[in-house]
Amino acid sequence: MDKILIIKIGGNIIDDEQKLSAFLDDFAKIPGHKILVHGGGKLATRLAEQMNLPQQLVEGRRITDAGTLKIVTMVYAGYINKNIVAQLQSGGCDAIGLSGADGNSILAHKRVHASMDYGFAGDIDEVNASFFQSLLQGGLTPVIAPITHDKKGQLLNTNADTMAQELAKSLAPYFDVSLIYSFEKEGVLKDVNDNNSLIRKIDRPGYSKLKAEGAIFAGMIPKLDNAFQALDSGVGRVIIGRAEKIHQLISAESGTIISHE
Amino acid sequence: MDKILIIKIGGNIIDDEQKLSAFLDDFAKIPGHKILVHGGGKLATRLAEQMNLPQQLVEGRRITDAGTLKIVTMVYAGYINKNIVAQLQSGGCDAIGLSGADGNSILAHKRVHASMDYGFAGDIDEVNASFFQSLLQGGLTPVIAPITHDKKGQLLNTNADTMAQELAKSLAPYFDVSLIYSFEKEGVLKDVNDNNSLIRKIDRPGYSKLKAEGAIFAGMIPKLDNAFQALDSGVGRVIIGRAEKIHQLISAESGTIISHE
Repeated sequence: MDKILIIKIGGNIIDDEQKLSAFLDDFAKIPGHKILVHGGGKLATRLAEQMNLPQQLVEGRRITDAGTLKIVTMVYAGYINKNIVAQLQSGGCDAIGLSGADGNSILAHKRVHASMDYGFAGDIDEVNASFFQSLLQGGLTPVIAPITHDKKGQLLNTNADTMAQELAKSLAPYFDVSLIYSFEKEGVLKDVNDNNSLIRKIDRPGYSKLKAEGAIFAGMIPKLDNAFQALDSGVGRVIIGRAEKIHQLISAESGTIISHE
Repeated sequence: MDKILIIKIGGNIIDDEQKLSAFLDDFAKIPGHKILVHGGGKLATRLAEQMNLPQQLVEGRRITDAGTLKIVTMVYAGYINKNIVAQLQSGGCDAIGLSGADGNSILAHKRVHASMDYGFAGDIDEVNASFFQSLLQGGLTPVIAPITHDKKGQLLNTNADTMAQELAKSLAPYFDVSLIYSFEKEGVLKDVNDNNSLIRKIDRPGYSKLKAEGAIFAGMIPKLDNAFQALDSGVGRVIIGRAEKIHQLISAESGTIISHE
């Protein structure tokens, strides 16, 4: 079974031009099949401010109203996605930028909630695995913006972490998948403020133990629950760690490795 | 030889939500291989105004400075491109949105001029015909935004008419190509203000005669020169006409047909 790397790059790296550029130089050099999923960073918020578009917040969450959807479509699928693709192309990586609408690659529906309207937020229904397979077989590297569609003409704003996870699960029957979440920290930390508290390896029994002991940063728990869900769906391993060390993350010399055993 | 339609849709249709929607419904239904190239319309200018970004004009031409490039990348390759793709998908057309950077599909260089700096304006060097062939063979319909790249990491603003023409020429060895420029007028008019002055058919001897007689609207001459250049490069026919009549343009029942004989 061919190997594939599905790498999510976090928003805080997107916001730092130098760090992003260094990461993309590294990413371009990775051999074999790979897919990059990028978040949005703070550019969309800054653009909304420049355009005097007030941010709608409900219970602390930003709501994707029509104006916000327009901005995230422009910034994520336009500015960020095409600049990443152009830089990867300059590094010899044959990148192709995609939203979930392109090639009907990631189908979603507008989030339904009993008491709350999340606006144009998309929950994923289906990943078009055969579309990604044919691009990969053609030597292309998909670069995915966190925008999906509902096949009824509506674009939807979708969480990039979730997109990476769903993509990993959908490709698991065809590839040996490594799902890598790269961001500004060393990996899963016992103490979120101490990079030396890195946990190098987590398996399921170890995870239960860490949770029972309260020895894991609370904010990480949903991410780890998702990681184990991905493993249950056939993803080979999930690796969480620092974007600057992407090559060491791939070779398992850095970050936190989450696997069955 | 398989047939292919390469259709450019003009900016004034892009600016009219209802007309654009009607056009896309029609376009989605066209059978066989097809490619859509879209212009930008006035959205980018309006966004620049909202952001208080002054437009740089040199000798009446808008210059693509860094701020303008950012805006056109957001608006053309993001907002317009992805909304067109989503609507085509809803109509059952398996569209994929592309800039020239994606899959290195259209390579360009920053325009060089002895006395003037056009900013980030791109002149096309090469169209990646094999990339388009493989997408088309996979049943996909490319939707192309007027943004290219130089393979050195730089995105470039490029004229959509020229992109459609270069695409048509590059695919001519592999397909029987019809290049269609669709816009708000009936076709090539003797009198630009009179839709009844439509010229139905122009061949090369006829064109020389019309030019000699001064019987053709001056603004059309560069477009017609380009059309004959496309024919010389193997494009089967060039058709110019009204976007609302796209099916009749394809069947040659409407518009102006430009061909060798």
